[in-house]
Amino acid sequence: MVDDVSITPWEVSGSLGDTDYSRIATEFGAKVIDAGLKKRISEFTGDLHPFLLYDVFYAHRDLDLLLDAYSRGESFYLYTGRGPSGKMHLGHLLPFMFTRWLQEKFNVDLIIQITDDEKFLFRDLGRDDLEKYTNENVLDILSLGFIPEKTHILIDSRNSGLLYNNAIKVARHINVSLAKAVFGFSDSDNVGKYFFTSIQAVPSFILSEIKGKSVRCLIPYAIDQDPHFKVARDVIPKIGWQKPSSIISKFIPSLKGTGKMSSSDENSGIYLDDDRRTVRRKLMKYAFSGGRDTAEEQRKFGANPDIDFAFNVFRLLEQNPSVVGKVYEEYKTGKILSGEMKAMTADRISDLLEELMARRDDVRNHIGEYMFDPEKF
Amino acid sequence: MVDDVSITPWEVSGSLGDTDYSRIATEFGAKVIDAGLKKRISEFTGDLHPFLLYDVFYAHRDLDLLLDAYSRGESFYLYTGRGPSGKMHLGHLLPFMFTRWLQEKFNVDLIIQITDDEKFLFRDLGRDDLEKYTNENVLDILSLGFIPEKTHILIDSRNSGLLYNNAIKVARHINVSLAKAVFGFSDSDNVGKYFFTSIQAVPSFILSEIKGKSVRCLIPYAIDQDPHFKVARDVIPKIGWQKPSSIISKFIPSLKGTGKMSSSDENSGIYLDDDRRTVRRKLMKYAFSGGRDTAEEQRKFGANPDIDFAFNVFRLLEQNPSVVGKVYEEYKTGKILSGEMKAMTADRISDLLEELMARRDDVRNHIGEYMFDPEKF
Repeated sequence: MVDDVSITPWEVSGSLGDTDYSRIATEFGAKVIDAGLKKRISEFTGDLHPFLLYDVFYAHRDLDLLLDAYSRGESFYLYTGRGPSGKMHLGHLLPFMFTRWLQEKFNVDLIIQITDDEKFLFRDLGRDDLEKYTNENVLDILSLGFIPEKTHILIDSRNSGLLYNNAIKVARHINVSLAKAVFGFSDSDNVGKYFFTSIQAVPSFILSEIKGKSVRCLIPYAIDQDPHFKVARDVIPKIGWQKPSSIISKFIPSLKGTGKMSSSDENSGIYLDDDRRTVRRKLMKYAFSGGRDTAEEQRKFGANPDIDFAFNVFRLLEQNPSVVGKVYEEYKTGKILSGEMKAMTADRISDLLEELMARRDDVRNHIGEYMFDPEKF
Repeated sequence: MVDDVSITPWEVSGSLGDTDYSRIATEFGAKVIDAGLKKRISEFTGDLHPFLLYDVFYAHRDLDLLLDAYSRGESFYLYTGRGPSGKMHLGHLLPFMFTRWLQEKFNVDLIIQITDDEKFLFRDLGRDDLEKYTNENVLDILSLGFIPEKTHILIDSRNSGLLYNNAIKVARHINVSLAKAVFGFSDSDNVGKYFFTSIQAVPSFILSEIKGKSVRCLIPYAIDQDPHFKVARDVIPKIGWQKPSSIISKFIPSLKGTGKMSSSDENSGIYLDDDRRTVRRKLMKYAFSGGRDTAEEQRKFGANPDIDFAFNVFRLLEQNPSVVGKVYEEYKTGKILSGEMKAMTADRISDLLEELMARRDDVRNHIGEYMFDPEKF
């Protein structure tokens, strides 16, 4: 573990810099995505998504092997997920945009697991809240616009039969010692928590089970989910299937600059139903700035875009690297002021949110078609 | 724990006498079924089943409360189960005859849970074997002749969705400390084992969940299953339903006299497909006898029927207490020899097995109608 930083799927404390992230990846046994691998990816995708360009998705396990197989004509599917513990904010949504990009570029199936059972076991949330957040979160995610016939929402409570029958295959290979070591559990944690990682492992081999032959899987996730997939990768070969590959992101910084965006602090995140005025107000008031204290100083000394929330989000929403480069230079040299940077990003965010809102009704009307169905494969 | 006797659902060691059983019941927090409670039961049933008369079902939890409620017009349902780890033998079957009697006398629904997931997690059995044993065991049990429209076979792997969604409600209240204390698990046991008791708890409140109001449940089981239901009784009120009541049996002795009949030792049990010759041979050769070494001694000193396997099975299969009393006296006083006792019992057993065989095809043809379906309630 990195000093003063604790990372499990349910607890992140401490503040992480780039060096910390590299150390974590290495300590967790993942590899950093280097220039060579980026080049390799762009051979398939044409361009590189900002999440890769700016090292937000920065580490991987066996992504190179997956690409080797893909270039031999062996396809794969994507699997990612969401724990429906509350309303989604921008920090939750952004990684799904990267997953959408992967789906488009490789034209593959995508399973999105909604772990309402996890939130029941870990957060003590009631069924009514879980149902509400599940429905809303699914609409939020799908509004990004995935390939409809290749996108499969797997809600744990509604697919629990399939999940449990396969989860026990995994559970048989995970003992309590291992779960304690990997997740930091103690004897006072409930037995459902210990079992849960087996449920989260299932989508990473479910298409192999359904098709009766090994199908490769690529899992995009944030680094805090790594303990789950580290365990899954150890176990899955024991039940006869290939290890899934993964592509791992840093945390999306919160408005206030450190840690994950939190669902519980209203002002630490931008919600998907925030209107233009609210988005701008939140950025102006709360966004951690790399700028100077006064406009005068800023014009003279320039800002530090690298630690600036607004700039960091801006570059993730801007597909054109030369635009990003230009803004970076102008912000750094004081041509752009902090308020202008924030306003620019606020507009980009609101444009995105409006785009989602516009797609939402259409998605709602076709929601049934997105639901996971083993018969479709 | 009783000295030198260890009892969990997966391990029974040591040999138990009547005093041990009473002590175990008390230590586990159950009550012995006394003359008063037997009288109370017979007010509802008219007669007493041999299993109650001869104290095989000898202990209970809140059976008195259940009968109080029943006499006020509040009904209940029965829940029992079977782990399909192999072929069923007589020792497995006999307790189901008692459950059948309870169902008939009270005219109630009965859920029979087949815990194939348990055997997968604890015994490392493969899916093919589990499938085979499940199908065979279900036929064996149903051949006893339960009330078709009130009998519901709940096979874990086929009802895993319903089970998992409800099991997590239980799991949230069971921590690893408790599971270790109750089941004797250690950190090297797999997380599926720890979770499993939550799955076994579900049928004891599932009708309450389905109907959305508390429905009483009576669970007949052998004492080794008590740890599961002790935990279930603690947790179920926390999720809003009434504690289930239970009626608890001693182990059915094996041919060889001590411990449970084992599925792994061919000669320790009588299998349901053993023919008349095999049954007789097994009794003659292996059945633990309370008789004397020679016919001469037996005629002079008589036998000890209480420890005699053949007599003990005979009395469970004979509904008429005065016939049992007569055989007891004649065997004890040497009028009946051991070989005769064994032959008499072998005939009774074979009559029963033939009766089951005769019903088997009919059950097979209607097997679908017995499968658990939430819509039926």
